[in-house]
Amino acid sequence: MVDVSSKPIVLREAVAQGEITLQRETIERIQKDQVAKGNVLAAARIAGIQAAKKTGELIPLCHPLPLTHCEVNFEFPPSLDRIVITASAKIAAQTGIEMETLTAVCAAALTIYDMCKAVDKTMTIQGVRLVSKSKQPLGTAPDRPTRRRASPRGR
Amino acid sequence: MVDVSSKPIVLREAVAQGEITLQRETIERIQKDQVAKGNVLAAARIAGIQAAKKTGELIPLCHPLPLTHCEVNFEFPPSLDRIVITASAKIAAQTGIEMETLTAVCAAALTIYDMCKAVDKTMTIQGVRLVSKSKQPLGTAPDRPTRRRASPRGR
Amino acid sequence: MVDVSSKPIVLREAVAQGEITLQRETIERIQKDQVAKGNVLAAARIAGIQAAKKTGELIPLCHPLPLTHCEVNFEFPPSLDRIVITASAKIAAQTGIEMETLTAVCAAALTIYDMCKAVDKTMTIQGVRLVSKSKQPLGTAPDRPTRRRASPRGR
Amino acid sequence: MVDVSSKPIVLREAVAQGEITLQRETIERIQKDQVAKGNVLAAARIAGIQAAKKTGELIPLCHPLPLTHCEVNFEFPPSLDRIVITASAKIAAQTGIEMETLTAVCAAALTIYDMCKAVDKTMTIQGVRLVSKSKQPLGTAPDRPTRRRASPRGR
Amino acid sequence: MVDVSSKPIVLREAVAQGEITLQRETIERIQKDQVAKGNVLAAARIAGIQAAKKTGELIPLCHPLPLTHCEVNFEFPPSLDRIVITASAKIAAQTGIEMETLTAVCAAALTIYDMCKAVDKTMTIQGVRLVSKSKQPLGTAPDRPTRRRASPRGR
Amino acid sequence: MVDVSSKPIVLREAVAQGEITLQRETIERIQKDQVAKGNVLAAARIAGIQAAKKTGELIPLCHPLPLTHCEVNFEFPPSLDRIVITASAKIAAQTGIEMETLTAVCAAALTIYDMCKAVDKTMTIQGVRLVSKSKQPLGTAPDRPTRRRASPRGR
Repeated sequence: MVDVSSKPIVLREAVAQGEITLQRETIERIQKDQVAKGNVLAAARIAGIQAAKKTGELIPLCHPLPLTHCEVNFEFPPSLDRIVITASAKIAAQTGIEMETLTAVCAAALTIYDMCKAVDKTMTIQGVRLVSKSKQPLGTAPDRPTRRRASPRGR
Repeated sequence: MVDVSSKPIVLREAVAQGEITLQRETIERIQKDQVAKGNVLAAARIAGIQAAKKTGELIPLCHPLPLTHCEVNFEFPPSLDRIVITASAKIAAQTGIEMETLTAVCAAALTIYDMCKAVDKTMTIQGVRLVSKSKQPLGTAPDRPTRRRASPRGR
Repeated sequence: MVDVSSKPIVLREAVAQGEITLQRETIERIQKDQVAKGNVLAAARIAGIQAAKKTGELIPLCHPLPLTHCEVNFEFPPSLDRIVITASAKIAAQTGIEMETLTAVCAAALTIYDMCKAVDKTMTIQGVRLVSKSKQPLGTAPDRPTRRRASPRGR
Repeated sequence: MVDVSSKPIVLREAVAQGEITLQRETIERIQKDQVAKGNVLAAARIAGIQAAKKTGELIPLCHPLPLTHCEVNFEFPPSLDRIVITASAKIAAQTGIEMETLTAVCAAALTIYDMCKAVDKTMTIQGVRLVSKSKQPLGTAPDRPTRRRASPRGR
Repeated sequence: MVDVSSKPIVLREAVAQGEITLQRETIERIQKDQVAKGNVLAAARIAGIQAAKKTGELIPLCHPLPLTHCEVNFEFPPSLDRIVITASAKIAAQTGIEMETLTAVCAAALTIYDMCKAVDKTMTIQGVRLVSKSKQPLGTAPDRPTRRRASPRGR
Repeated sequence: MVDVSSKPIVLREAVAQGEITLQRETIERIQKDQVAKGNVLAAARIAGIQAAKKTGELIPLCHPLPLTHCEVNFEFPPSLDRIVITASAKIAAQTGIEMETLTAVCAAALTIYDMCKAVDKTMTIQGVRLVSKSKQPLGTAPDRPTRRRASPRGR
């Protein structure tokens, strides 16, 4: 585990994104809350947030970090062939929280997979990557986040 | 959680795959074991297996399953622009283990990301999907696994 | 931990119940899905199921049990002053699963508390108790569950 | 998860209470340390403290908080028909710790239930609620805690 | 993780032992239950049992096993310079449970260390090893356990 | 759990050590990376670090501490009859981290045991103890660590 003991505590933010491809019919069922196992997006949101809190337990060399914010959101592109998952997190800490947001995206995608696997055999998790990260001294205005990619889809 | 209490116990297997794209230089460092944080594939293999065992904790409606086998392997395609991660698992149980293998692939990919993020800012996790699953009555020869996709890349 | 190694494996079921008292206004917000933190009952259901799976980790001398079913449901009595939480579980095992259902009720109640505590300062968790348990040999019809109390409210 | 990233770090305390009703004979066994499964209150105290530390894992939208103090205590009212459980906790943090103390009370009560369930079929967990909470700037004298209820029993 | 999917389910037992050296004065405090942090052996027993249940989570390639029995006991040799910790476990499973008992001994010893470290700066954990293991077909009389060492101290 | 809420936050370090005795042939297999279960030291290092992060979960009255550094290293004394395991950790916190380093040593030793138990039936974990601990005010030069023992072997 990298020694971050001497690094200053700064406010850190990160945003990650990914997507899961589904059949149009599956997406329509999710939107109408007609999936037998229950509310898919509510379950996936909670799974993502819970996994973000467990990142230090899942990724061997990650520092354990008591997050002060985590959010997981979902979008349905007009093509209705995928759900785009965005996770963001914040903390004042000595090291960054990319891994927390990427872990949240994966857990949310896996949960969508689990909730829908009885009716959709074609799902694939795609494009999980960091979208931006930033840091700022405590008590100041935020710096401009470093965008990682021109396009949020990344491919 | 779906009620599987009345289903018969059968031997189940599943295989999932996914990949993480990296820069060629990063892949060469991994192959030469020159990444500062340590042995990347050893860490990713352990993270994948550990996550498979935790699937019931990470995915809200998954049944907890005491796996009797789990394996995570890595391949470097000749293009040297990605690592292909394959996870397989087995158990005699009343329900399948797709989610265990998919979770293992994600955790292994996230661990590669974490170990390499200081030197590579372009990594993306791609194509995480089920490759095959099968079941057979206890004490018999295995059935032919149901292959999900002709191509391992999946799209 | 009690030694259950020589007990036969039988199909076991249990049902527990409890309630959380809330202000009528809070209950109306939950029913209209207008609580700022999100969908209260979806979060409480998942928390209950997840806690049931963790019972062996939370209660020191509980045997760890890979549940084959767990369900958490909510009712709003006409008085609109409380939510009644019912959890049930099943497993073929050498020991019972009362604790799993009681733990699920508590975790669901605590989650409702957490989701609503910004707007309701009067919540109390009440009447958490076992409602029934039963066991039956594998492959037979269920016995009649042992009802613990005439009234589901228990006092 | 509510964003508390910009809130000041202040010293926070909370106290929660609850009770479990038992038969007089069971209480006498506990007091004489004659319960077959072991020392009931020692087990319940540890279970409560351990659960307080796990609150962020059990309650989906709770922030993970590295507590600097947690205590669980037990009282036997003269009626000898119940055990009153009191949990308190402290931390310097950006958000409160009600949930940690309520979770500790529930886990302690569930553990008493588990330790005594072979000899007592009538136990019920009752009156789990917040008793007080307070906060004070770091390095100052404590403010007066906000008492939630006139009576500690709350009913 | 070794593939044990085809191995027969047999009843397995294991016993491990270890010790922690302490000052005579510390041992006398433990025996009189005068340690400020609480009942040392009750805490150590619970920590040992809880850790046994978590073995599959702590040791990377251990199979997760839902134990049907685990017991942790303590002896004070007449020399009053150490506590001998013995852990035993049972399960009907496809693989053995040495690691569960060894993990229980370590966690119990670490807990004694933690409870006493304010008053004793000389503690050392010693001689943690497997004492015996055995297996027997289900429904038969036990085979003779394989004793590993003539002397319980092991060196 | 001891109340450390009013203690100042200082930078803390600790180092613990222990060893596991093995047959010379087993040690040679480890050095040549010829153990069937995989890379022994890579697995043991990760298990040690992961366990250090879980100390507050394993040891009942330990405070949960988000470590900012943890390292686990291995040495082969010329006698080739044992592996010496050293774990160190750092954090700016209100309480020390001895237990984290001792827990890391135990988990690493247990993992070596697990990886080698198919080929070596004589392993024993020995001499697990604190080697040094120190603290220093934030933003100053470190004080001289308090060495606990002249000899690293401890007996």
